[in-house]
Amino acid sequence: MSDQKKAVILLSGGLDSATVLAGAISEGFQCYCMSFDYGQRHQTELTFAKRIATRLGAVEHRVTTIDLAAFGGSALTDEGLSVPAFDESDLAIPITYVPARNTIFLSFALAWAEVLGALDVFVGVNAVDYSGYPDCRPEYIAAFEAMANLATRRGVEGAFLRIHAPLIALSKGDIILKGLALGVDYSQTVSCYQLDEQGAACGVCDSCGLRRIGFIEAGQPDPTRYRATSTR
Amino acid sequence: MSDQKKAVILLSGGLDSATVLAGAISEGFQCYCMSFDYGQRHQTELTFAKRIATRLGAVEHRVTTIDLAAFGGSALTDEGLSVPAFDESDLAIPITYVPARNTIFLSFALAWAEVLGALDVFVGVNAVDYSGYPDCRPEYIAAFEAMANLATRRGVEGAFLRIHAPLIALSKGDIILKGLALGVDYSQTVSCYQLDEQGAACGVCDSCGLRRIGFIEAGQPDPTRYRATSTR
Repeated sequence: MSDQKKAVILLSGGLDSATVLAGAISEGFQCYCMSFDYGQRHQTELTFAKRIATRLGAVEHRVTTIDLAAFGGSALTDEGLSVPAFDESDLAIPITYVPARNTIFLSFALAWAEVLGALDVFVGVNAVDYSGYPDCRPEYIAAFEAMANLATRRGVEGAFLRIHAPLIALSKGDIILKGLALGVDYSQTVSCYQLDEQGAACGVCDSCGLRRIGFIEAGQPDPTRYRATSTR
Repeated sequence: MSDQKKAVILLSGGLDSATVLAGAISEGFQCYCMSFDYGQRHQTELTFAKRIATRLGAVEHRVTTIDLAAFGGSALTDEGLSVPAFDESDLAIPITYVPARNTIFLSFALAWAEVLGALDVFVGVNAVDYSGYPDCRPEYIAAFEAMANLATRRGVEGAFLRIHAPLIALSKGDIILKGLALGVDYSQTVSCYQLDEQGAACGVCDSCGLRRIGFIEAGQPDPTRYRATSTR
């Protein structure tokens, strides 16, 4: 039997959560990764998530299917809405916001943590990704953690369940520098909201814009594979 | 267009949530009911839930499929564990506890509420049903509400999202009296953890025990249909 502590890691196939997983492994956690098939437009990110979990040394990777698309209301899951181009000056809540997504994801992570006997859940939300998403803010994470400790058997029994959001105060550039120091190969991560089936990025959506600026901030080459037709 | 406020109601097909729905309708809410197919052993309760939603006058009823069984750890979803008989003196967290179940259910309700523009979510948790379930306590509901107001667009914009748990301080007998006053037909609700395919109750599980005592407390005839082989 290992003495390592178990942790549940929310893994999307993107740059941020790959960095979080590498960090949790470097801290000595046995990592159980969870991804979601939630009707997102590109399934390619799940393929990337599984590969990242294996390469970085996770103990297990699970994909849970949930039907967020049934609710509609987001350009990320609603085929009737188009994904807008990145606008750095726009601070309103964007149309790509998925209602209560992080709350649903963290709730599933909490359930798995309880079954595993894990007291640590890691999530890759950060201040830059906030860009108007209410469920990426530190006060939200703190409130979820408080709720989680009242919701679960372990919490009631006096153990403290911690929601780790180690990237929350970092810029995209700092996240990239942290990940590179941990050995993350960012060519194996995807961020684009409009990935094609080969995993090539559009270069123009919000997520591509933040990622591109991140590599510039970090002063590092951008290993992202963009589509030939990209309008960057 | 109606001026009625919309509410999302978590509806299980059981006695408690039917009472909650009847109460919300009597308060003038347009009710959107949500049930879950989460690998519970008896699907019959979903049939009852749909019928209750229609009879009591809900605007819509949705069944969302989620895979709680994949986590294991509960006698309600794990075929390898047997459901224990009711023991009124046992205050430990029971084996029928499903990890983080109410957190997951409320998270989905929150997502739907946000899409609908609803600021009210109703859930039928109560003190008696607590019997060791951490996520049926008032402090848990308050913490979820605080988190919900930080998680959502409407919350950020200054609206207050309320999680109503109108049964939380009521005994089973008081719930039954409240429901009867609202016209709920409890013969159309199911509580048993081990329902058969015809919707007949076992009479011996925790949930049957609490329900049976409730009708006695209320001084009302018990309309529950028990199996002929029941050992009551």
